[in-house]
Amino acid sequence: MQSIEQLQNKVVELFNNLQIDRNPENLYQPIDYAMSQGGKRLRPLMVLIGNQLFDGRIEDAMPAALGIEIFHNFTLLHDDIMDNAPIRRGFPTVFKKYGPNTAILSGDTMFVIAYEHICKSHPDILIDILHLFNKTAREVCEGQQLDMDFEQRTIVGIEEYIDMIRLKTAVLIAGSLEAGAIAAKAPLADRKKLYEYGINLGISFQLMDDLLDTFGDEKVFGKKTGNDIVTNKKTFLYIKAYEKADAATKIELDLAFNLTNPEQKVSRVLELFNQLNIKPETEFMIEQYKNMADNFLNALQLNPLKRSMLEEITTKLTNRKV
Amino acid sequence: MQSIEQLQNKVVELFNNLQIDRNPENLYQPIDYAMSQGGKRLRPLMVLIGNQLFDGRIEDAMPAALGIEIFHNFTLLHDDIMDNAPIRRGFPTVFKKYGPNTAILSGDTMFVIAYEHICKSHPDILIDILHLFNKTAREVCEGQQLDMDFEQRTIVGIEEYIDMIRLKTAVLIAGSLEAGAIAAKAPLADRKKLYEYGINLGISFQLMDDLLDTFGDEKVFGKKTGNDIVTNKKTFLYIKAYEKADAATKIELDLAFNLTNPEQKVSRVLELFNQLNIKPETEFMIEQYKNMADNFLNALQLNPLKRSMLEEITTKLTNRKV
Repeated sequence: MQSIEQLQNKVVELFNNLQIDRNPENLYQPIDYAMSQGGKRLRPLMVLIGNQLFDGRIEDAMPAALGIEIFHNFTLLHDDIMDNAPIRRGFPTVFKKYGPNTAILSGDTMFVIAYEHICKSHPDILIDILHLFNKTAREVCEGQQLDMDFEQRTIVGIEEYIDMIRLKTAVLIAGSLEAGAIAAKAPLADRKKLYEYGINLGISFQLMDDLLDTFGDEKVFGKKTGNDIVTNKKTFLYIKAYEKADAATKIELDLAFNLTNPEQKVSRVLELFNQLNIKPETEFMIEQYKNMADNFLNALQLNPLKRSMLEEITTKLTNRKV
Repeated sequence: MQSIEQLQNKVVELFNNLQIDRNPENLYQPIDYAMSQGGKRLRPLMVLIGNQLFDGRIEDAMPAALGIEIFHNFTLLHDDIMDNAPIRRGFPTVFKKYGPNTAILSGDTMFVIAYEHICKSHPDILIDILHLFNKTAREVCEGQQLDMDFEQRTIVGIEEYIDMIRLKTAVLIAGSLEAGAIAAKAPLADRKKLYEYGINLGISFQLMDDLLDTFGDEKVFGKKTGNDIVTNKKTFLYIKAYEKADAATKIELDLAFNLTNPEQKVSRVLELFNQLNIKPETEFMIEQYKNMADNFLNALQLNPLKRSMLEEITTKLTNRKV
């Protein structure tokens, strides 16, 4: 079995060797631009980890690792159009740099390239990988739609929100782990446990992201905090605050979210969030999903070395500094 | 073997039974809207014809027929955003009716649904169908990019233009025929001949479309002619006119294409096109591609019944009234 560091090196190598050089240049250059900006490469790492947990051959998991990461980057291209996002990973988004039409079409092409890689999976596992990938891709689209729907609504329930982040974020993390397990020909029951582990991990990961955007240490978090507040994003924190607030505090929240000066707005919303104990509420929720993930981890009955590998990645994702 | 009419009925039935009813409604309702507008359903018919030519079982070709038509409709959703197109098949485009974000995301979802259908192909043929579908989907994206690139350029060569319509239109017609043949387990050599037949048929089909948009009988053509001229579209006619024109006539063409009154513009461009013999030039080119298609048809050595089936569809596509 390989260590997380070894797997990470494999992933880096995999994407360094990725060739996106074909004509027409106006189609492929933006893809190269998007893929060469890196990012955490978390999902392909998950594929390789899922594979190593069941003593698979790394090479068998490579097509899914490549396909899933390219798919993930495709969704970012299209999401950035829908969200009118100017910056991604410190660079102008494809949408901003090349325009929406390029972001649409280069994105579509990335989706095909993702399938091309998926289809290089060993014939023995191809159909299982494809079914998982199709299902996951569709759910990610559904999650993005729900996210956009919520923007238009005044009230969103906690359960609805969790379901949205499950679809938008968690299924791809879970699917990555399971794809690796499929490539290792793991038993179906184990695959499903690993998948559920991934779902709960993914949800706690997204909740942590929500928490960090508001309460994170900018130096550690790596980006400016308060952005979700400034943009009135319906995060777990936002929804929980409205759920807990009495009628008078709801009015205060409305007033705060309507402030036009960003600094005043962030500071006033933070005051109300603190008054409503939103930080411990969110931490409690993250703990709950981590515990559920742990239950599936226990059910997998991995040997200590493998267990610590999964725990290491869980810690990385959900114990980031607040 | 089934007749074209029987196959057409199968196709109609196939799409009448297509269920697109899932949540979130804002994602799936636009898909249902797009898919229920019909259209010629030419590509699934091609899949079934390709299948019957090699005595396949119709059911084996159904997944590809569905997948390819849904893929085709997905490309229309995204193309309509890029082309800012208000109307498709007599109805507002998804882009106009629901906005660009919905057209992007519902389109992406249709692409996944297309793959879901493709993946229902019999395991014996799945990998061949997938490779063909991946290759075709990528080429269609490349064709759309070239089409957009050409809009920004002043000079486009005939060869470049033919290559663009090969990618944007012909490969999907050729791919449809070959997918049907794959589902019938036709020999590779025959599949390739049928594919090349489809490429040449597809190119002549698109050239005929160019011709009809300018010289068609509106009553027979079913839509207003002259639209390509009004929008300065770089069609075969446009490119050929500039290729044949001497320096003085090029200036006349520039002046004509710069007229702002649509009727004056169409009438003046038509005058110049007639002066340059563009109609017979285009008809000659269509004939050439039909002849090349015929050569591949001959090479297939089909029995008379099957041959006449292919000829019937060729006639339908390329002998439309001018």
